[in-house]
Amino acid sequence: MKATFIHGSGDIRVAEIEKPSVIEPTDAIIKITATCVCGSDLWPYRGIQETSEPHQMGHEYVGVVEEVGEQVSTVSPGDFVVGSFCLSDNTCEICTDGYPSRCVNGGFVGEAQAEYLRVPLADGTLVATPGQPEEDLIPSLLAASDVLGTGWFAADEAQAGPGKTVVVVGDGAVGLLGILSAKQMGAERIIAMSRHADRQALAREFGATDIVEERGEEGVAKIKELTGGLGAHSVIEAVGTQQSMKQAIASCRPGEHVGFVGVAHGVSLPGDELFGAEVHLMGGPAPVRKYLPELIRLIFDRAIEPGKVFTKEVALDDIAEGYRAMDQREAIKVLVRP
Amino acid sequence: MKATFIHGSGDIRVAEIEKPSVIEPTDAIIKITATCVCGSDLWPYRGIQETSEPHQMGHEYVGVVEEVGEQVSTVSPGDFVVGSFCLSDNTCEICTDGYPSRCVNGGFVGEAQAEYLRVPLADGTLVATPGQPEEDLIPSLLAASDVLGTGWFAADEAQAGPGKTVVVVGDGAVGLLGILSAKQMGAERIIAMSRHADRQALAREFGATDIVEERGEEGVAKIKELTGGLGAHSVIEAVGTQQSMKQAIASCRPGEHVGFVGVAHGVSLPGDELFGAEVHLMGGPAPVRKYLPELIRLIFDRAIEPGKVFTKEVALDDIAEGYRAMDQREAIKVLVRP
Repeated sequence: MKATFIHGSGDIRVAEIEKPSVIEPTDAIIKITATCVCGSDLWPYRGIQETSEPHQMGHEYVGVVEEVGEQVSTVSPGDFVVGSFCLSDNTCEICTDGYPSRCVNGGFVGEAQAEYLRVPLADGTLVATPGQPEEDLIPSLLAASDVLGTGWFAADEAQAGPGKTVVVVGDGAVGLLGILSAKQMGAERIIAMSRHADRQALAREFGATDIVEERGEEGVAKIKELTGGLGAHSVIEAVGTQQSMKQAIASCRPGEHVGFVGVAHGVSLPGDELFGAEVHLMGGPAPVRKYLPELIRLIFDRAIEPGKVFTKEVALDDIAEGYRAMDQREAIKVLVRP
Repeated sequence: MKATFIHGSGDIRVAEIEKPSVIEPTDAIIKITATCVCGSDLWPYRGIQETSEPHQMGHEYVGVVEEVGEQVSTVSPGDFVVGSFCLSDNTCEICTDGYPSRCVNGGFVGEAQAEYLRVPLADGTLVATPGQPEEDLIPSLLAASDVLGTGWFAADEAQAGPGKTVVVVGDGAVGLLGILSAKQMGAERIIAMSRHADRQALAREFGATDIVEERGEEGVAKIKELTGGLGAHSVIEAVGTQQSMKQAIASCRPGEHVGFVGVAHGVSLPGDELFGAEVHLMGGPAPVRKYLPELIRLIFDRAIEPGKVFTKEVALDDIAEGYRAMDQREAIKVLVRP
């Protein structure tokens, strides 16, 4: 089968490798219907994260179950499934506490930009959809696999909800879907921090009520101005840089909540600023599996259309072009069809 | 009247100054019954925090109201009162949201190691006790003014409660009262990280079920060993150093809660460690005023005796000796009688 490998900075190649097969009795093999390129894939693509040796890429996926191990009971061959980018047994103490992304028996998916994928802990990682989805739902279901689930987690931890003013730092796909999530949770006002016209348009479509183009201290000053000097109740951080983290924390009013999901690179938070900000700070890999049943229902009900973040589609053979387009910010997010 | 000044590292002096009087109509003047030396007073005393010019010290106090401004309505001359170390109007949006320590009209008390104290925003800062307290309750009421309220806040934000395993980093008065607070909140198991025999004894008296003497990575390993490899549900950080903060975060299981109240000095938290820890992190100046009515009730009911942290008492004239004894760790906390 065909699979995607990174060989180094800017070097994405598709190679022919052996099709995966069931190894553990809890495995499932799925035929990938759609996969995509993640903002976090750009860290190694840009050389900010080192690639010591060539390895497979991809952790977002939807597809059809082809084969299952003998202990798998919740999904069967022929089922259309959405999976989390984190593996989880969904039964351990951490999973049942609501954090399957930190399952004691878990791990990460890393080989999804391919024709087939072996998913360990299939029962605890995959969720079958209620019947085969219509073709136009596939991008939205794919988004649920990571980018929507991650935005949803950030909004959930930021306690977005009725009466709340929400600030979203970052206008990539996760930030945009953080807006959609906050809107779905009933937030009263959603301020998107963005300076790209195309993303501002999608932000408004997803529910943003205000756009702030300023960044850093100027951005914080603008947020304070819009919130009676107090800052926002809920702040979603979806970038992962020093500037974005400090901007998120400083935009939050004392006692309130910041959910951060940008994978931190080169971030160092001064303790006195954290003490002085006095906000609830929570983030990490999103427990997508926890949210999947609800997200799938919302997508099947056509209540949300997160798939709009896919502004470009390529065939698996052309995935290098997908990486390039995302790196150059020509596309918000790129869907890949094996 | 007599008041305490710091002139520089290790240099504490008592001087005669004018007695304060009502300036604003929301002020109260109280005659201090007892005040004390705080762990945070040791930062400038040790020269870790610079003293650019001599200034008054002290932010913990109980006393009797002597005079009030014309707008003060909740306390009257003759009332025995406990006050927060933070000033608050208790009516602004941040106060009513539960964070009076961050009142938009607030500030900090800084002149309490004296015979008299002017308290601005008296209605929102002071709480009168139900009648004059018996003499033996005074140390406990004084503790409520900061050190108990701060430990209580840390335990509250760490979500200590029934079924929870709590870790307390720091065996100073705040850490010890964090133990008392967690016990009062119903925590199942309370692990005190301490290597001082006298403090271990008080920790056990306050409710600690386990003592861990190891620190840093060894301390974290021990906590993991005691918690089935997962870490604690609730972690109270009551020191404020790089080591204690990292130790606290690493001792917490994913998805759970760290309350930090040690005033951060030289702390810098790597973003990737925060992302990897995936814990709820919250801390800052404690909203003591919010807890005062409940804490006063518990003390009057003799359900708790936080005053046990005062292991030494001095007259105001001898307060320099109080600083010295705390600095040398000869006393856990020093009560001062004007």
